[in-house]
Amino acid sequence: MNSIDNLINALRCFPGIGPKSAQRMAYYILERGKEQGLQLAKNLHEAISKVTNCKSCRTLTETETCSICSNTKRDQTLLCVVETPIDIIALEQTNSYQGLYFVLMGHLSPLDGIGPNEIGINILQQRLNQENIQELILATNLTMEGEATAYYIANLASNKNIKCTRIAHGIPMGGELEYLDGNTIAKALIDRRKI
Amino acid sequence: MNSIDNLINALRCFPGIGPKSAQRMAYYILERGKEQGLQLAKNLHEAISKVTNCKSCRTLTETETCSICSNTKRDQTLLCVVETPIDIIALEQTNSYQGLYFVLMGHLSPLDGIGPNEIGINILQQRLNQENIQELILATNLTMEGEATAYYIANLASNKNIKCTRIAHGIPMGGELEYLDGNTIAKALIDRRKI
Repeated sequence: MNSIDNLINALRCFPGIGPKSAQRMAYYILERGKEQGLQLAKNLHEAISKVTNCKSCRTLTETETCSICSNTKRDQTLLCVVETPIDIIALEQTNSYQGLYFVLMGHLSPLDGIGPNEIGINILQQRLNQENIQELILATNLTMEGEATAYYIANLASNKNIKCTRIAHGIPMGGELEYLDGNTIAKALIDRRKI
Repeated sequence: MNSIDNLINALRCFPGIGPKSAQRMAYYILERGKEQGLQLAKNLHEAISKVTNCKSCRTLTETETCSICSNTKRDQTLLCVVETPIDIIALEQTNSYQGLYFVLMGHLSPLDGIGPNEIGINILQQRLNQENIQELILATNLTMEGEATAYYIANLASNKNIKCTRIAHGIPMGGELEYLDGNTIAKALIDRRKI
């Protein structure tokens, strides 16, 4: 194996990058982007060594507590549970949520050996016990695993008498019934609201 | 700018990687692939420092002369001109060419300041003068720039009385006329062969 092949193989670590894309990326760097490649290597090193998990919400951060958890202006009574740090970015971009977050870093998946401890349920329980959280918003994905994880957490919260909500399921904005799957439409019918 | 944002920006150096993909890649590395990320940084460094251009054909290699140029079993009378090192891989995979290569590392593009010297025409001319090349196969891409580059090189070769050929244009294997563009079909008609 020479260093070009090694680089191609290493690039395949990214999700969605197959052998052809990895080859194109490696050759691009070696033909025209050596400087950018070195910068990338430096930034990889730096980020990997600096970034850690927020001790309060588990998201990725360079500080002990992330900027959202340490922001006292945010509503400390609302806690939104998401699967990954990118979900926080997606929610923050909407500018419609001012509470705190908790990141599971995945979802329950017993077959893969991912149980409650792996997704930080113990830390979440601690927060529910110690903090004045009045509503727990479950914003895990609408997949089988996301749903199962949401129900599991809802169960925990109900034991502690904390109000627990799930983000709404239904027709997305701009969605046309004609092109939506039956499950989504059925769910939208069941969850219909009075206008 | 924190180190996560720096990493996302650095990942955008790759062709076809936009802000969303770069974000996903960066978070993937930081959430689940720290070890792979460090390996990638190491491989980037190694490849960038080791890889250079073959002094004979200009392709990317770790040695002074690449493995194809230094292989005496290959037909030294055939020289195939391609735009990039990846084109060599594509041609080699067909197992139907046993000659040598010459890599332009681009194509003529006067508006971008890429003239004959930038694509190594001087080195190519030297080879045509010194080596016993009997056929020059022009395998640049079938784009405007690739065609212009091919004609430019064909012109040089004709001055030296070297046989010069262009890879065939026409309907690709498995291609259905219904879905092909008019230019391809027209070219296939003009270049029709007796069967």
